[in-house]
Amino acid sequence: MKTDLDNLRVVLVAPRNPLNIGAAARAMSNFGVFRLRVVNPYEVAFREARSAVGASKLLAKAEQYDSVAEAVADCRLVVGTTAVGHRELQHKLQSLDVAGRTLKRQLKTSPVALLFGSERFGLSNEEMSHCHWVMRIPTREEHGSMNLGQAVAVCLYELVRGRKMPAKAVRLEKKTAAATSRDIERLTQVMLAVLRESGYVNPRTVGGEEKLRRLIRRAKLNSNDAQVLVGMMRQIAWKLGKDLEDL
Amino acid sequence: MKTDLDNLRVVLVAPRNPLNIGAAARAMSNFGVFRLRVVNPYEVAFREARSAVGASKLLAKAEQYDSVAEAVADCRLVVGTTAVGHRELQHKLQSLDVAGRTLKRQLKTSPVALLFGSERFGLSNEEMSHCHWVMRIPTREEHGSMNLGQAVAVCLYELVRGRKMPAKAVRLEKKTAAATSRDIERLTQVMLAVLRESGYVNPRTVGGEEKLRRLIRRAKLNSNDAQVLVGMMRQIAWKLGKDLEDL
Repeated sequence: MKTDLDNLRVVLVAPRNPLNIGAAARAMSNFGVFRLRVVNPYEVAFREARSAVGASKLLAKAEQYDSVAEAVADCRLVVGTTAVGHRELQHKLQSLDVAGRTLKRQLKTSPVALLFGSERFGLSNEEMSHCHWVMRIPTREEHGSMNLGQAVAVCLYELVRGRKMPAKAVRLEKKTAAATSRDIERLTQVMLAVLRESGYVNPRTVGGEEKLRRLIRRAKLNSNDAQVLVGMMRQIAWKLGKDLEDL
Repeated sequence: MKTDLDNLRVVLVAPRNPLNIGAAARAMSNFGVFRLRVVNPYEVAFREARSAVGASKLLAKAEQYDSVAEAVADCRLVVGTTAVGHRELQHKLQSLDVAGRTLKRQLKTSPVALLFGSERFGLSNEEMSHCHWVMRIPTREEHGSMNLGQAVAVCLYELVRGRKMPAKAVRLEKKTAAATSRDIERLTQVMLAVLRESGYVNPRTVGGEEKLRRLIRRAKLNSNDAQVLVGMMRQIAWKLGKDLEDL
């Protein structure tokens, strides 16, 4: 099935850790993004990532480039990611959630590149100069820099956010009808009898029954659960020597 | 500074990989969540994660529990995470973005636990029975299961999403005033002269000037850039032997 995300290219610039390359690829697969491009990876890392147990087809098909310019050549929008350290940014900077809206719009019609810099330094000024603008995940100022694989996962999540869950995944709890007032009242009476029998409720106490009635109603029991509880209470009553046949 | 996120406890149930425990802790620090709880971790993994180079204070302060019940005892809302595999869920299931709204509301007033299951199997039915409801990151049905560290990062991002970026991080490009029409027209004329001089524009062609004028206006140049371009064109003109003193 073709989706807007087919227009997205995830570009890792100079990644050094094979685990991070693998993690980026896994997040891409999780979210349905399949075009991975790698610019000047640390060769050993790239080889290791590709040959790792469970390495995906996605990783095997990853394209390797010698420069950012080549890696983004077919894209009509190029967006960098940054943790914004000390460097003075020369670009317009947007928070991920705001940027996400623009990205989604653009992905409907044309190829978009999302650039992630190396683990140590992020994107250099030269690398960033290929971007139209840059975006930032709203991390804490005191600890802004995210792990590469996690940053990719968070950015892609923003792009699929709000997407409907696959039908099979939406397994709401089986709706059981709410208990009828008759059921609820039956439970109230059985429970009250048990509480009296056990000495918890003093028969002469005023208002005890009403308190219990309100408590049970606040629980918003469904029909099944109310019946199960009635059964439990009857059993307890029986053990207490109380005959509840009439309830 | 106290934030709503002080009410959040991230609970890793039976994690087995020290790198994942470390990654979860890093994402927590990135997003300003500091209470990590670990239930029955694979002991070696937990020790390794704590003693890793660069392990955070957060990890050192992580609390260890023998059961989910103990780990969530002080919480008023307990939410599980699931990739929804084959298991029939017994719980209400919500997509992360919808769940996020409820979580944020609850975090304003009381402690909330977010449960993540083990890397291999996710949360067991027993573990999940401690949850009020469960949530799901909208991954593909064909590859639903996320890496633990990435799943934690994505869930926490949803909770800080929309949070204002720290003032220092919002470095918009310095707003330079848009070029005046005078500047733009000056550029148009200089460029036209250069194009004519170079033979690109045939002086007898009709409409060439209008085309160039429209093209330049579409670029929405700012004042500085327009002046820089005028300077470039003058230099080219000079090289071409054309005197543009009058423009």
